[in-house]
Amino acid sequence: MLLPSLPFLTQAHAPLTCEIDAVNEYGERHQVSIPAERALTVYVDKRELVTLMTLGAHPELLVLGYLRNQRLVESVRDIESVTVDWEVGAAAVKTRHGIADIEEKTARRVVTTGCGQGSIFGGLMDEVDRIELPPDASITQSQLYSLVNTIRLKETTYKSAGSVHACALFAMTTGDPDLLLFVEDVGRHNAIDTIAGWMWMQDKKVESEANKVFYTTGRLTSEMVIKSAQMNVPIVVSRSGITQMGHQVAQSVGLCAIGRATNKRFVCYTHAGRLRLEPGLVSRPEAVAPLQG
Amino acid sequence: MLLPSLPFLTQAHAPLTCEIDAVNEYGERHQVSIPAERALTVYVDKRELVTLMTLGAHPELLVLGYLRNQRLVESVRDIESVTVDWEVGAAAVKTRHGIADIEEKTARRVVTTGCGQGSIFGGLMDEVDRIELPPDASITQSQLYSLVNTIRLKETTYKSAGSVHACALFAMTTGDPDLLLFVEDVGRHNAIDTIAGWMWMQDKKVESEANKVFYTTGRLTSEMVIKSAQMNVPIVVSRSGITQMGHQVAQSVGLCAIGRATNKRFVCYTHAGRLRLEPGLVSRPEAVAPLQG
Repeated sequence: MLLPSLPFLTQAHAPLTCEIDAVNEYGERHQVSIPAERALTVYVDKRELVTLMTLGAHPELLVLGYLRNQRLVESVRDIESVTVDWEVGAAAVKTRHGIADIEEKTARRVVTTGCGQGSIFGGLMDEVDRIELPPDASITQSQLYSLVNTIRLKETTYKSAGSVHACALFAMTTGDPDLLLFVEDVGRHNAIDTIAGWMWMQDKKVESEANKVFYTTGRLTSEMVIKSAQMNVPIVVSRSGITQMGHQVAQSVGLCAIGRATNKRFVCYTHAGRLRLEPGLVSRPEAVAPLQG
Repeated sequence: MLLPSLPFLTQAHAPLTCEIDAVNEYGERHQVSIPAERALTVYVDKRELVTLMTLGAHPELLVLGYLRNQRLVESVRDIESVTVDWEVGAAAVKTRHGIADIEEKTARRVVTTGCGQGSIFGGLMDEVDRIELPPDASITQSQLYSLVNTIRLKETTYKSAGSVHACALFAMTTGDPDLLLFVEDVGRHNAIDTIAGWMWMQDKKVESEANKVFYTTGRLTSEMVIKSAQMNVPIVVSRSGITQMGHQVAQSVGLCAIGRATNKRFVCYTHAGRLRLEPGLVSRPEAVAPLQG
């Protein structure tokens, strides 16, 4: 049977940073660059669903990923088009058959810990138990360092304007990790949802790949870990730490959570079996400062 | 006329951190401390309203501040009691007369940029235009440094476990700022809502004080700036930066937004007139690295 085609997406663009006047500690006026933050109101079949506050780099993919991660739409092919118009700050989603019991699906509200897109509608947690991550997926210590270095070298809005979170998706091969997508947003949940939207558009090609690694600058809270697992990503690397519930979920779904990953340092919180350590790869400095959780 | 009394609040306690086993870059197993993250489901007059993910340090004040900042309850005295039971992760709110049109008030959903409590129900923005912050409130450069140093010296969950945001409220006098309340949470919006709840419990005593300063480790996004303004706080200090919408709102309400505040450095983004600079207070180092926005 012939599948319906993938959704049509606009390519709406808007400036990601702006210059403002500021005063520093010497009383000097100078210009600083700050990241954009704009409201994007999502309409599904002309019905207002939600307003997302976003940097605006990939609004169409963000909306797709939001609909996906909120479990409002089952298949990307149920969506005919996503039309973003920054003039009015609106994203118009046209579905092929509407969304069944959208009222019910959007009724329960969980306000979460994560940065950015903090509201997940109920039911997200319920799925966790059913998740089975690829058992053999792993990453070597050198691959981890290569991944962290790839992020470090990127030209980013963060470097120019600060105050944004970044997410990245890597495909693991035998060699260095292959950067598939790098996303920044004012909210880290927007960033991960944008990646989810992008993966959706790749059909099952990326999804079914066993060895994927998700990187985030943000903390590994419950929602971040759940969303990673739902995208079938068995390894998550963060520049920050982890919370108790993030740790519990990672433990239970078999996700390898690595935090505090900067330069050669890291802390592997869960399922260290997926991390293939290479003894002697790093030489111990005179004194190692203790890392925070 | 006799006012109804302030609400009765339980004093529910739960551990704020836990120890987990981790593996570091040398392959060594060691224990790290991570912050708690627990679900607190809020019931208003037995009706489920929302589930907040929180560290759990001040659940009763968090719930109060949430109801206040979501504009669901007008006066703290409309609330009879907030009863938190960590055994079941529930906060039972008993109002005196119920909440009028709660359905309508909780209908529109704005998913915001901020960490933590990312969902604000509609109408929050609508109020901004009506806000008038005390025109004469100001802070001297030395007071700013004293404030930042007070935060630096605090014993915190962040120092022991990382991955939490902190907020603090200071009263300004002629001398050093007076720390009124210091709150940490896994979500920075929970932290500011907890402060809002605490201020509510002080009646108008703190609220009406002209010279207050709000400190946050988090970014100054639109929602953080709006919430500060709604609490009649004219000066906000952040360790992080500001977003474009946070900047716009601060400009329009007359709020002095100061970011990147660490040691002696800072960037004053808006209404620098409230910041009384003291030339020569800081001596310029050989080379000053540019600060991000």
